[in-house]
Amino acid sequence: MTSAISTRTELPTLHHLNDSQSQRILWLLEELSIDYDLKLYERDPKHHRAPPSLASVSPLGKSPILVSADQRTITESSAITAYLLKTYDIKNIFESNDWVRDEILTSFVGATLGPIMTVELLFDLAHKATPFPLSWLVGRIRKAMHNNFTGKELRKGLKWLQDELGTSEWFGGDKLSRADILVSWPLDIFVFRGWIDIQKDFPGLWAWRERVLERPAWKRGIEKGNGYNLSNW
Amino acid sequence: MTSAISTRTELPTLHHLNDSQSQRILWLLEELSIDYDLKLYERDPKHHRAPPSLASVSPLGKSPILVSADQRTITESSAITAYLLKTYDIKNIFESNDWVRDEILTSFVGATLGPIMTVELLFDLAHKATPFPLSWLVGRIRKAMHNNFTGKELRKGLKWLQDELGTSEWFGGDKLSRADILVSWPLDIFVFRGWIDIQKDFPGLWAWRERVLERPAWKRGIEKGNGYNLSNW
Repeated sequence: MTSAISTRTELPTLHHLNDSQSQRILWLLEELSIDYDLKLYERDPKHHRAPPSLASVSPLGKSPILVSADQRTITESSAITAYLLKTYDIKNIFESNDWVRDEILTSFVGATLGPIMTVELLFDLAHKATPFPLSWLVGRIRKAMHNNFTGKELRKGLKWLQDELGTSEWFGGDKLSRADILVSWPLDIFVFRGWIDIQKDFPGLWAWRERVLERPAWKRGIEKGNGYNLSNW
Repeated sequence: MTSAISTRTELPTLHHLNDSQSQRILWLLEELSIDYDLKLYERDPKHHRAPPSLASVSPLGKSPILVSADQRTITESSAITAYLLKTYDIKNIFESNDWVRDEILTSFVGATLGPIMTVELLFDLAHKATPFPLSWLVGRIRKAMHNNFTGKELRKGLKWLQDELGTSEWFGGDKLSRADILVSWPLDIFVFRGWIDIQKDFPGLWAWRERVLERPAWKRGIEKGNGYNLSNW
């Protein structure tokens, strides 16, 4: 990834936002050892929102966006990971035999765990943004929401996820799978935001995440990106 | 679907909950004209929650759950639709040529639109559950949330979705696709809950939904289910 390479049109381009779920796409690109262009975008320092320039790549203005080598604009993390694996994982370094399980795990992360995490995040952000003494009230509401709804649902989901992993090294078994790439984002959110003590309550998922952090491809992705601190917002 | 048929173990079984996203799976089963068993579950009348008996089929206790003909338990609507199409759409009555677009639309519905809709629903339900005069305060908070965040995001998403449909009859073009099945749920929510005036503001999506409601398979699915009134909760 030098500027010489980045002028070649046949490379896929990742439009990447700091402190975002796009980090897992960078990880996958590095695991696949393919050449790609990287365009970095920065959240605005005050509101931590994605810059308007991302909306010129795709109208929803969310990262990640992958522009493929044949100039197709692909949004949505699960679509991008499916595309990259189908296009570039020619040697099957990723596990792909049980596609039904992969679909279940993929949808669980995005469509089942995702909405509950969004609610939890909303109250987390509202609590932090509210000045004293109103912050006390918002904190009480947040705690009630966590104790009565989100906390229970998130723990139920994490228990299911840990059971799915079982005693395997990866969700794909001995090999990584698309599900492993996608699971990394919610677990990072949990660890950074401290909503649930993953190390204590879900040691299997904690150990899985420790293995991810040790992978050379994960480390290279972090080096090439422009920051991944999910406590920043 | 008679009791004689339902004792044959080679049929897939849909575990279906009234007033839920499982209705779109019933629709797909009818479009595919396959034999299946149907097990109906009822939300409890007071809190409108799924009954605990669903958790004995799959630990998360959410509907839909499909138990396949070979006795595999499949959760998550997008995984169930993918499984059914791959297994039973032998004549390709569904469009499946552009799988990347299908993945993008599928993920958009579940992982992008879904979380914002969950936030909107939460405030909607909280507003309705709060007695006067506190309901006034919750209504104000709800309106602020809608005007500043969810309303904008939902409209941006619906505009994108309508642009994706374009002038085509279906998201799959001339044929239905998996995306059509999956899009029906969020659009039904919008229409039943009245969050956004789809008929006025997104006439293309409204017309698409009218076409769905006219399909014989949709109607058969409604007849076989145990109710689909998303204003009930």
